[in-house]
This record gives sequence, C-alpha cells and structure tokens, in this order.
Amino acid sequence: MIRIGIVGYGNLGKGVEAAVANNADMKLAAVFTRRDPSSMEIASPGAEVVSFGDIEKYKDKIDVIINCGGSATDLPETTPYISRFFNVIDSFDTHARIPEHFANVDTKAKQAEKTAIISVGWDPGMFSVSRLYMNAILPNGKDYTFWGKGVSQGHSDAIRRIDGVIDAKQYTVPVEEAVQKVRSGENPELSTREKHTRECYVVVEDGADKARIENQIKTMPNYFADYDTTVNFITMEEFKANHSGIPHGGNVIRNGFTGLENKTKHTVEFSLKLESNPEFTGSVIAAYARAAYKLNKAGIYGCKTVFDIPPSMLIDADDDYIRAHLL
Amino acid sequence: MIRIGIVGYGNLGKGVEAAVANNADMKLAAVFTRRDPSSMEIASPGAEVVSFGDIEKYKDKIDVIINCGGSATDLPETTPYISRFFNVIDSFDTHARIPEHFANVDTKAKQAEKTAIISVGWDPGMFSVSRLYMNAILPNGKDYTFWGKGVSQGHSDAIRRIDGVIDAKQYTVPVEEAVQKVRSGENPELSTREKHTRECYVVVEDGADKARIENQIKTMPNYFADYDTTVNFITMEEFKANHSGIPHGGNVIRNGFTGLENKTKHTVEFSLKLESNPEFTGSVIAAYARAAYKLNKAGIYGCKTVFDIPPSMLIDADDDYIRAHLL
Repeated sequence: MIRIGIVGYGNLGKGVEAAVANNADMKLAAVFTRRDPSSMEIASPGAEVVSFGDIEKYKDKIDVIINCGGSATDLPETTPYISRFFNVIDSFDTHARIPEHFANVDTKAKQAEKTAIISVGWDPGMFSVSRLYMNAILPNGKDYTFWGKGVSQGHSDAIRRIDGVIDAKQYTVPVEEAVQKVRSGENPELSTREKHTRECYVVVEDGADKARIENQIKTMPNYFADYDTTVNFITMEEFKANHSGIPHGGNVIRNGFTGLENKTKHTVEFSLKLESNPEFTGSVIAAYARAAYKLNKAGIYGCKTVFDIPPSMLIDADDDYIRAHLL
Repeated sequence: MIRIGIVGYGNLGKGVEAAVANNADMKLAAVFTRRDPSSMEIASPGAEVVSFGDIEKYKDKIDVIINCGGSATDLPETTPYISRFFNVIDSFDTHARIPEHFANVDTKAKQAEKTAIISVGWDPGMFSVSRLYMNAILPNGKDYTFWGKGVSQGHSDAIRRIDGVIDAKQYTVPVEEAVQKVRSGENPELSTREKHTRECYVVVEDGADKARIENQIKTMPNYFADYDTTVNFITMEEFKANHSGIPHGGNVIRNGFTGLENKTKHTVEFSLKLESNPEFTGSVIAAYARAAYKLNKAGIYGCKTVFDIPPSMLIDADDDYIRAHLL
C-alpha cells in the first residue's frame, strides 16, 4: 500500500482524498492543515488530521505527499520544503514560473534523494502531455487549446470582490464555431475574443446597482475586457440549485501535415468533459503519486514533470498485464 | 543526425520515409528490400537501396532500423533478427501474439545491448497509450474504441479474392448513434454490429454475377457476417477518382466515475482523423525511433512498448524548452 499524505483540505484536497479511496493500492495516512486539526473532520476513517507544522515527524510514515496549496504564494514555498523530507506531487499552474519552481524543487529533492512531480493535473498535466505527443508526431502543424465549458475560480473570485455582489460563478465557454473550424482541419488565426466567451451568474444585495456591477465586470482588465461577456443576475435560490458544481473540460486539437510535400492533413484531438474539476484533477494526481513512488523505489530522484513519466508507471497493474490487455 | 534505415518499401515504408524527411534531426540512410535493389527507385535523394540480405553490413552506419514488414509472418521473424544488430521499431499488430513477440525481441535486444520498441503506430500505439492514461486516471469506468471511417486493408483484400472482382475497397464506419451514446456519458453494452458498419466499393468484371458477389461478401465469416454491410458496385473510373486514398481514424472514449460514492462522471476522449493511415503511422514511428535512439544512448536496452516511453523522449527539443513551452 502506498501511504499518501494530503497538505490542504480544500476542494482539491477533498478530490485527492476521494481518488485515493478509489485506488486499491493506496491509503490515506494523514491530512496536514494550517487550521486547528481538532476543528476539522475529514471523510476518510482511519486517517489522521495533523498540524502542517508537524509534517517532518511523518517522514517515515508517508510515501508520497500531495501538496494541494495554491500556486500564487503557497506552492513555491511549500513544495521545495516538503521535498526535503518526502516524495511530493503538486499542481503548480503558473505557466511562466514553472522553470523557476522546477529548479527549486529539483535541488531540494535531489539532496534528499526524493522524487517530486510538479504541475500535475489536466492543464498543466494531461493537456500538456497531449500537446507533447501531438507535436512530436506531427512536427508540421498548429495546435489549439480550448477550455470549458467550465468554472473559472479566479474569475468567479474577481466578480465576488465587486461591491454589492454576494456570490458569483463564471463559466468559460469555448466558441463552438471556432472549435468546429479547427476540428474540420482549418488552421485559423483566432483572437482571444474569437476563442472563448465568459458567462457570469451573479447574486447581488437588495437594491444593488446592477448596471454599475455589470459594467464593472465587463470592463475589468485582464479578466473580462478582452472577451464577450454576458452577465446574468439571479437569486440565491437559483444560484444554489443550478450553479453549485465545479464542472470543467476542454479540448486540445492539432492539425498537422505529412507527406513529401506536406499536403496530407491529420487532425488529432484530446478532450475532457468533467463533472467535477477538483475530483478529476485529484484523480490525475493520484496516478502520478503512484509514479513518484515507483520512480523513487527505482532510485530516480529530483524534480520531474508529466513529460518525464512513462505511462506504465501510472497504473496499478504490471507490465505483462498491460501489454496483454491494453496494447 | 539520427541515421534511419527502413526495411520494406510498401505504403508504410513510404510513410516512414516522408516522416523522416519532415524531422530535422533525422536522415534516411538506406532502404532494405527483398526485391532487386537495382529495380527500385525511392523518393529520398542520397539514401541507398540495399538487399535485405546485406543488412548486417550496415551495423555501424545506421542508428535505428524501422521494420515495415507484415505482422502475420514477417515481423515475428525479422524484428528479433534485426535487434541483434540494430535498435529497431516495428508496428506489430497481432494483439494476441504481442507477449510472445515481446519476449523474443527482448532476449535478442538485451544480448546485443540494443533498444527495440514494438507495436508502434496508432492502434496499437497512440490508442493504447490513451487507454492506459485513461484507465490509470479513472480506474472506475469503461472504455470504448471506435475505428474509422477508414480503409481496412485486410477486408479490402478479402473482397478482391472473390471470383469476378477486379478491385475493392472496404471502409469501416463507426455507428454514429453508438459514438454519441458513449460520448454523452452512457456506458452501453454494444454488440459488434452496433459499433461498426462496413461499406464496400467493388469493381467487377463485365458480366459478373453481382448478386452472387454481394452475397459472398455479406456472408463471409469473421470479415463481414457479424456486421451490417453495404456493397456498392462502381466503375473503375469512379474507383480511381474517389477511392484511391487510405484514410482512417477513430476514437477512444472512457467514461469514468470519481468521488466518495463514485457518482461524479467524467468523459475523456482521444480521436484521430487521418487523410493517410500509412503516413500518420509512419510519423508516430519516426517519433518512437527518436526515443529508441535516446534510450540506447542512455544505456537502456531490451524490448519496450509505447507504455514504457516517457513522452519527453519523443520530441526533438530539450527538457528546458518543453517545460517552458508545452507544459
């Protein structure tokens, strides 16, 4: 049994917890938290709830730590720290800072003879792996990534910070016409506005100025100004009934050309339709936790990404079995 | 430059040749043939055409051999033989005999300190890798593979062997209703007949008995009897104009469940739409030839499959670049 520790018990931590419960070769040993452990209840019977400050004491009791902190300020600090004592997985998703984060974790993990895999999930993660396979196989081509329809936590938070807003959910929606154009084999140049729209569902205080709020959303730089945005004001009842889930998904599509004159066209697509983003992300992470465990046993240390992991290391089955049944 | 040798110059050999030409880090050194080399012209300037009997002499002139023979009788003999002298890739696709073929190649390759990757292409190959990722991430679920719309060489050959038939092409066509049912998240039980239909385009001799030929096709055991088959008799002109290509494609779809009660549904799909089956297969093989070369340089010997290869080894780019640009 691979003994798993989870750091952070938010949506992603709970998604990982469920994934661990669904993998027969894994067991949740402990959840580490910065809150008061005695105030917290977790779903897994038999797992401890421990203060994050005590994590080093669990060095010999846990095989892989799954770090479910946020990318902005938490993971850059905690993943290198954790990799001094444990094999560790995180879902670091600040694309521009990946090289720096990788280098920091790599140094610590190598010193400690631990194995870390960073930026695991679906984007970065499964979408990245798909882009890599597609680019390697079809070097002459162009790829497109569409996200949604799904909830963007960052955009929902941005709306909630507006004065008069009680709650809000923002869905990123791919423009169907653009997806179809790419899928049909065209390689169009698409602006930001042509690829995705943004749909907002907003609950406001009684008597709030809806026109002002709608305008503040639609003109918000970085978040909404470059998109066609629709704002729907709804009641808290409707919000709870229809917008309490965290669905997501998307597509990676590459059109590539082969042949001596590069005229033969191929379209490769990988797509996801997810009822729960954190549960699916947690499931991807659980598979890579297995790989980190196997790599460490094999004496392969340092920081890795999804690009470095042979697919066979992800599954709870031996090589003879997968060659006979999945090849 | 990775020096490539191709064994066999049929459709697949030509597809590999074009793929090698489109990869900046590869060069075609020689094509090996059982025909008279002096009778053969190949598309690549500068590459030699050599009798297969002389292949051992090229031991130090070629880094990876791509074996484009047939799975039925050729590859089980020649891939183990070639792996005594070269790193080698094949596209062995007789699913039931993969374990045996793997063991034979593994023994020879290890003795010679060579690296072989067998069963490379899209099915087995990219579809297998997709099934593995999906099964590892969503252990509770069910996957479906649909093939087509595309040309089945074996079925076309079977029709051509019927008395009175001049030429024929058979398309395997997935039943759209079944694909949609799976894609919408249902996990239906589907019979062979419910998954695919078979469309045949047949050119016959003047005065041939079309009713007899149609009946022979539709009742042919193993090939057509279990399917809904349509037979279209066409002229040679129409055949040449509309049925000279070798398109193919298909989808792997897995519906899986997560959450503490396994009630949250996710749909993962990988799909291909290929204008030329051999050119795409050749492109996949070229990427895995690169991986075999890198693995061998790293001292990793023996037989491998697509399951064993880290995605990063497939691409002509270094790890820093792919982390910065594709993750």
